[in-house]
Amino acid sequence: MTTEPPAHAAFVAFTLAAGTDRRALGRMMRLLSDDAARLTRGEPALGDTDATLAALPARLTVTFGFGPGLYRAAGLEDRRPPSVADLPVFRIDRLERRWSGGDLLVQICADDPMTVTHTQRMLIKDARPFATVRWVQRGFRNTPGVQPAAFTQRNVLGQLDGTANPRGAEMDTAVWTPEGGTTLVVRRIRAEIETWDLLSTVDKEAAVGRRLTTGAPLTGQQEHDEPDFAALDPAGLPVMPDFAHVTRARVTDPRLKILRRPYNYDDPPNAAGHPDSGLIFASYQADITRQFLPIQRRLAEKDLLNQWITPIGSAVFAVPPGCAADGWIGDRLLG
Amino acid sequence: MTTEPPAHAAFVAFTLAAGTDRRALGRMMRLLSDDAARLTRGEPALGDTDATLAALPARLTVTFGFGPGLYRAAGLEDRRPPSVADLPVFRIDRLERRWSGGDLLVQICADDPMTVTHTQRMLIKDARPFATVRWVQRGFRNTPGVQPAAFTQRNVLGQLDGTANPRGAEMDTAVWTPEGGTTLVVRRIRAEIETWDLLSTVDKEAAVGRRLTTGAPLTGQQEHDEPDFAALDPAGLPVMPDFAHVTRARVTDPRLKILRRPYNYDDPPNAAGHPDSGLIFASYQADITRQFLPIQRRLAEKDLLNQWITPIGSAVFAVPPGCAADGWIGDRLLG
Repeated sequence: MTTEPPAHAAFVAFTLAAGTDRRALGRMMRLLSDDAARLTRGEPALGDTDATLAALPARLTVTFGFGPGLYRAAGLEDRRPPSVADLPVFRIDRLERRWSGGDLLVQICADDPMTVTHTQRMLIKDARPFATVRWVQRGFRNTPGVQPAAFTQRNVLGQLDGTANPRGAEMDTAVWTPEGGTTLVVRRIRAEIETWDLLSTVDKEAAVGRRLTTGAPLTGQQEHDEPDFAALDPAGLPVMPDFAHVTRARVTDPRLKILRRPYNYDDPPNAAGHPDSGLIFASYQADITRQFLPIQRRLAEKDLLNQWITPIGSAVFAVPPGCAADGWIGDRLLG
Repeated sequence: MTTEPPAHAAFVAFTLAAGTDRRALGRMMRLLSDDAARLTRGEPALGDTDATLAALPARLTVTFGFGPGLYRAAGLEDRRPPSVADLPVFRIDRLERRWSGGDLLVQICADDPMTVTHTQRMLIKDARPFATVRWVQRGFRNTPGVQPAAFTQRNVLGQLDGTANPRGAEMDTAVWTPEGGTTLVVRRIRAEIETWDLLSTVDKEAAVGRRLTTGAPLTGQQEHDEPDFAALDPAGLPVMPDFAHVTRARVTDPRLKILRRPYNYDDPPNAAGHPDSGLIFASYQADITRQFLPIQRRLAEKDLLNQWITPIGSAVFAVPPGCAADGWIGDRLLG
């Protein structure tokens, strides 16, 4: 997940069926791990009913997340990373059950949407004896080759999104636990485009703290220029407003950064033509309480952008470490 | 539309508001034509509220379709191409209103999904004084570069889809009217994957009449080999079954062919994990009655594949000719 995100993603959350205990979870994860390993190599899953669709892996990655309910079902609550627990309710939240929670998450990413569709189909089929589908969120990023590699993508509000991600060695420290796992926060953030589009460019840029065209901070020229929070305008006010998204989200200690890997969504508009689109916010961090929560608290408290974005879904997962060639994902926990 | 289809599409159908008469339609089409022209060049629309999202046209095309209701609203029923009328009901149809009909269609195609999202947003906004959104269908094809160019894409049933399309000069004859327009049939075809996946490969191939791996007809070796409908198997039965999709859909007269430009869809599955996916069938032909209907009748009558596909939406449109640099789409009809 520390490589360039593929263009298409499906976040599939499951609710475990009654009776799916530790042993059953072990059987399920053996099966799903094997499916994922084969499909990412461009081979059909063992029980693949549409094998021809497995031939284009298109940089397929499959990531598993264990929600709080999985540890309960397995009788292993003492093994749950403490920060993997329902987030506190933020004042800005308007959470809907249909986009929230989940005992198991399968995140499927690939550069081809049909690869995502096929992989999702096979993994859901093999999970059926153990779990029902709780929600599925499909998202997209720019198509590879449409713009220069590593260019920061724009979200549906037209903002460059992901500029402040940690890079290189900083990223490894921020993302991985000593055991080689991580945690994942998935939040569905609806964009209030109808009211956002009433703003002038100046007001939009003040809300974010960056130029819309270049993504440069209001005190800089280029996207990756460091914002100057001490700079004052001729009236003596900070050029980077205190309420701007960039100001509120800022993290200086690299160990406290989070790795954001968001995907855009765009569901059909209503009859009046109002869009149903926004961001599937997904962040990886070693510890949700230590890294994600302080940022989220600062944003919930006083981020002007909150007027044009609404969190409508929320879920947290532990992402277990990778496994040995003859192992399976979760074997150290469930085996 | 006779070039390689872009990877992502939105089919947006509108219902005209009461009072949208010929003059209002003229104003609307001036506006939407101008939006489309600018956005395909990578420029913002005149009233673009998220101009930065216009910078990546990604092979954007915008195609307009006039449904029967538009001719009625304009008081120009005598100018409606006779074949642009609700299709007869086929025995296999299970049409849902939420995917059917429409007075105006805007088909937006681009290689980048964000380009489709932004273009859809701008065109819907500018159409609002004149029309409400009736339905939107988002679809996808393979990502460019994932497989060799001009490779026939697979649908969600794993079949190569589009092999028999007319090519070159044949295509021009089949698609365009003498006036330079065409007609468009959009049908939403749900794939019954749960039961399809119970079939053996042999049975799947018999239903289609082609090999799943290569797309070759059952009598051939390669995708574009001509099927041999006279070939018999050792038991004396036709190798290409009479009930096979390819047999039923076959057209020999090039003037009677249709140009299929389908997109796949994959909406979220239900809790039991049953997919909601299939094909947004879109075909272009000079005349729906002469070209599309005979094929559709033969398929509805005896295509074994009907057991695993269900038409749930249907709409027909006239696609007006392109316009001069200082004109607008539909000017010869509405101007």
